[in-house]
Amino acid sequence: MLDSPQKYAIFANRTFNLNMMIKQYIKENEERILDELFSLIRIPSVSAQPEHHADMLRCAERWKELLLMAGVDKAEVMPSDGNPMVYAEKMVDPAAKTLLIYGHYDVMPAEPFELWKSEPFEPVVRDGHIWARGADDDKGQSFIQAKAFEYVVKNGLLKHNVKFILEGEEEIGSGSLGAFCQKHKELLKSDVILVSDTSMLSADLPSLTTGLRGLAYWQIEVTGPNHDLHSGHFGGAVANPINVLCKLIADVTGEDGRIRIPGFYDDVDEIPAEERKLVENIPFDIEKYKRSLDVEELFGEVGYNTIERTGFRPSFDVCGIWGGYTGEGSKTVIPSKAYAKISCRLVPHQDHRKISQLVIDYFNRVAPRTVKVSVQPSHGGQGYVCPIDLPAYQAAERGFEKAFGKRPLPVRRGGSIPIIAAFEEILGVKTVLMGFGLESNAIHSPNENMPLDIFRKGIEAVINFHLEYDK
Amino acid sequence: MLDSPQKYAIFANRTFNLNMMIKQYIKENEERILDELFSLIRIPSVSAQPEHHADMLRCAERWKELLLMAGVDKAEVMPSDGNPMVYAEKMVDPAAKTLLIYGHYDVMPAEPFELWKSEPFEPVVRDGHIWARGADDDKGQSFIQAKAFEYVVKNGLLKHNVKFILEGEEEIGSGSLGAFCQKHKELLKSDVILVSDTSMLSADLPSLTTGLRGLAYWQIEVTGPNHDLHSGHFGGAVANPINVLCKLIADVTGEDGRIRIPGFYDDVDEIPAEERKLVENIPFDIEKYKRSLDVEELFGEVGYNTIERTGFRPSFDVCGIWGGYTGEGSKTVIPSKAYAKISCRLVPHQDHRKISQLVIDYFNRVAPRTVKVSVQPSHGGQGYVCPIDLPAYQAAERGFEKAFGKRPLPVRRGGSIPIIAAFEEILGVKTVLMGFGLESNAIHSPNENMPLDIFRKGIEAVINFHLEYDK
Repeated sequence: MLDSPQKYAIFANRTFNLNMMIKQYIKENEERILDELFSLIRIPSVSAQPEHHADMLRCAERWKELLLMAGVDKAEVMPSDGNPMVYAEKMVDPAAKTLLIYGHYDVMPAEPFELWKSEPFEPVVRDGHIWARGADDDKGQSFIQAKAFEYVVKNGLLKHNVKFILEGEEEIGSGSLGAFCQKHKELLKSDVILVSDTSMLSADLPSLTTGLRGLAYWQIEVTGPNHDLHSGHFGGAVANPINVLCKLIADVTGEDGRIRIPGFYDDVDEIPAEERKLVENIPFDIEKYKRSLDVEELFGEVGYNTIERTGFRPSFDVCGIWGGYTGEGSKTVIPSKAYAKISCRLVPHQDHRKISQLVIDYFNRVAPRTVKVSVQPSHGGQGYVCPIDLPAYQAAERGFEKAFGKRPLPVRRGGSIPIIAAFEEILGVKTVLMGFGLESNAIHSPNENMPLDIFRKGIEAVINFHLEYDK
Repeated sequence: MLDSPQKYAIFANRTFNLNMMIKQYIKENEERILDELFSLIRIPSVSAQPEHHADMLRCAERWKELLLMAGVDKAEVMPSDGNPMVYAEKMVDPAAKTLLIYGHYDVMPAEPFELWKSEPFEPVVRDGHIWARGADDDKGQSFIQAKAFEYVVKNGLLKHNVKFILEGEEEIGSGSLGAFCQKHKELLKSDVILVSDTSMLSADLPSLTTGLRGLAYWQIEVTGPNHDLHSGHFGGAVANPINVLCKLIADVTGEDGRIRIPGFYDDVDEIPAEERKLVENIPFDIEKYKRSLDVEELFGEVGYNTIERTGFRPSFDVCGIWGGYTGEGSKTVIPSKAYAKISCRLVPHQDHRKISQLVIDYFNRVAPRTVKVSVQPSHGGQGYVCPIDLPAYQAAERGFEKAFGKRPLPVRRGGSIPIIAAFEEILGVKTVLMGFGLESNAIHSPNENMPLDIFRKGIEAVINFHLEYDK
C-alpha cells in the first residue's frame, strides 16, 4: 500500500489510518502468506528423529528463500556443530540500531498421530485456526516476525538494521547454538534480540514474558556406616544417613519459606514497587489454583504472593530422594547410604555457578562428623530478566497495545529457557520475548494450532514494534 | 556318681568336690552324650525347606526318646498349626516351683554346602570343636539343657518340677508357638522359663542376656499436589512432599539425640545405677567399633554410652525413603508423593501398640495443611527385660560362675526376639536367657561349631543352676 518513507511520514501521527492499512495489507496478502507458511510446515523438520535429517536442511533452505522473498539483502544456510543455522540480514544503515530476530525451524515429533484430527504436516485452516505441527511452535510465530519485517521493508518503513538467526535444535536443547554464537559474535552483533516463542496469559490478556528463572541442580550423597546395619544392634548408637539427609534438607528452608543458606539471597533483587503493582493486575484465582492441584494450602516465602513466588523469588526443591529398603513390607535396616537430587530455581543476578558453590560449601560446612557428605553439581543455567524500561521492551508493549487494544502485562515465568540467558552471556544483549502463543494452541501435543486472528494481530503487533523501536 | 539327695546334702557345702564330680560325670559319659547329640544333628531338620518336612517329625520323635532317656516322666510329640512340638515333664512335687525349658529342634539351611569343611549333617569332633549344622543353634545348646537335667535327675538332686517345650519353627519365625501357648497355658504353667539360645560376649567373658528391645514400624506417605509438577512453574509456591517429609522426619530427633515426640519416653525406665556400673565393666573398645563401621563420630542420645544406647534406650531410624526422580541425570520435578519406612526400637515397658498410635497421632498432628500425611503401622513387638534380682537369674549367674570361674556380665541386647516377649505376654512368665553361644560358632553360616570345652562348661553351669534355683 504505502511505498515510500514519505507517505509513512504523512500518516505517522494518524495511527488509526496506519493500522487500517496494515490490516488491509495482511488481509489482501493472507492467501500468499499462508501458502508460504504452509510450505515451511509441510517439511517435517523433527529434530529429535534421525529419519528427518534431510528435512532439517530442506527446511533451512526454504527459510532462506522465504526471507529473501521477505526482503533481506542476503541470507545463507550456515553450518553448525549440529543442524544448520539460517542467517539473514537487511542492513539499512551501519550507524543505525540493529535488531536480531531469533526463531527455530525444528519442531517436536507429532506422535501420537492417531490423536490428530488432520494430518500434522498437512496444514489446514478450520474454524478460524491453522492446524498443524509447528503452527505455533515455532514456525507460525517465527513467520509472524518474517511477515512483519516484510511489511516494514516493502513499505520503506525500516529505519534499523535487522538480522535473523534460525536454529534447528531448539526442541532438543539448542546444543549447537552457544558455540555458533561464540564463533559468530560479530555477525550476530546487535542492540537487542526479539523472539516470538513464548505465550500470553490468554487471548484477552496479552502479556510479555519479562523474566525467566535460572537453575542449579545437585546430587547429594550421605554415607554413614560402611555397610548396612541391623537396626536392632546399632539403632540409637550410629548416625543413620537417611535421618541425617532429612535434617540437612529440612534445615535449608525456614518456617517462613526462606532459604536459610547464608548468602543465598545476596544477589536477589527486591521486586520493584512498580512491578508489584503490575503483578496485582494479573487476574489470578488462588482457589481455582489450589483446587487444580488438590492442595488445601499453599506454601512459599512469607511476604510474597504465588505469582511473585514463582516469578521473582528463588526456590529450593528436592526432586528425588532414595535410600535403604523401599520394597514391600518392612526391613529393619540402617542403610549405609542415602541420596537426594536437589535443585534451586534462581532469579536474575543470582549466578548459578556462584549459588552452586555456595550450596556445596554450605552442606560441607554443616554436615555432621557422624557421616560423610558429598555434593555433586549437575547442570545449571542463568535466570533472565528484561527490564520493563528497556526501549525495545516498551516498543513491544506499544506494538501489542496497538494490535490487541490492551497494554500487555509484564509476566515473570518460573521456568527457564537457557538460550535467552546464553544470548545475554555470550552476545551481551537483552532479549524481548514477544510471544503470541496460547495455552490452547497445544504446542508439543496433538492438534497444535494457531488462531488466525492471533496470527494477524501478531503481525500487526510486530510491525508496530518496528515503528515504535525507531522512535 | 551321686545317687541320692542324702549324698548331695553331705557335699552341699563342699562345692569344690561337687564340681569335681560333675566334671567327672561329664567326662565319663561324654562319648554317649555326643552320640546322642549327633543322632539329633544327623536329622536335617531344616524348617525353611519343604523337602525336609518328614525330617521335622523324625527329629521331634528323636527328641522325645532322648528326653525320656534323660529322665522325664512323660514326653510326647504334640501337633501344632505347623511343625509338631515336643513336650516333656518331670514332676517331682506339685507344690514345688516349676521350670520350663524352651529350645528349638529346627535348624537353618546348610547352603552353601561347598564352604563346609566337613558334612553339615555328619557331625565330627575336630580341634576340640563339634562341627555341624545345629552344633550350637539350637541342638547343641538345647542338649546342654537336657544333659544337665539328666545329671540332677539321676543323682536325685532335682527338687523342682521341670517341663520341656521344643518347637520346630524358630528359624522361620515361630509362627505356631503363640497359638500353642494360648491353647496349652495350663500344660506350660511354670514359674520361670530357661532358654539356651543366645550368646556370650566371649569365651573369657561369660554373659547373660538380660534385655531385648521391642519394635514398632510404620510406613509414612506424604501427598502434595495431585500430580507431578514442573519445578520451574511451581517451585516456591507449592509445598514439595519430599521437603515436607524430610522436615517431619528431621523434627523427630533433637540435637541431643532424644526423640521429641511428646510422651515417647513416658514408659522408659531410667537405667538403675547398679546396671550402669555393670555396663561399665563390659570391655568395649569404642575406637575399634568406629573403625569397624568407618565412621568418624557416633551419634546417639546425650548422657548415655554406646552400650546403653543400644541396650537400654529406644531409637528412631528411617529404614527406607523414596520419592520423585531417582534415575540417572536430573529431572526438575516436584513429585506428587514421597514415602518413608520408619521404625523405633523400644525398651521394656514401652508398649509397641501404644507407641505405634502415639507416633501416628504425632505425625497427623504436626503435618502441615499444605500436604496430606498418612501413617500406616506395620508389625511390632514388645521388648523384654529380665530383672537381675530375679531368683532364677541369680541362679543362672551363680551357675555360670561355678562353671566358668567368672561372674557373667548382664548384657542388654539391642535386637528383638519376639517369642521371649510372647512368653511373658501369654504365659505371664519371665525368661532367663542362659545362652552359651560364641560369635565364632558361626550359627546360620557354613562351619557352624561348638567348642567342646564350652559344651561341657554349659552342662556344668546348668547343673549348678538347678542346684542354686532350689536354694
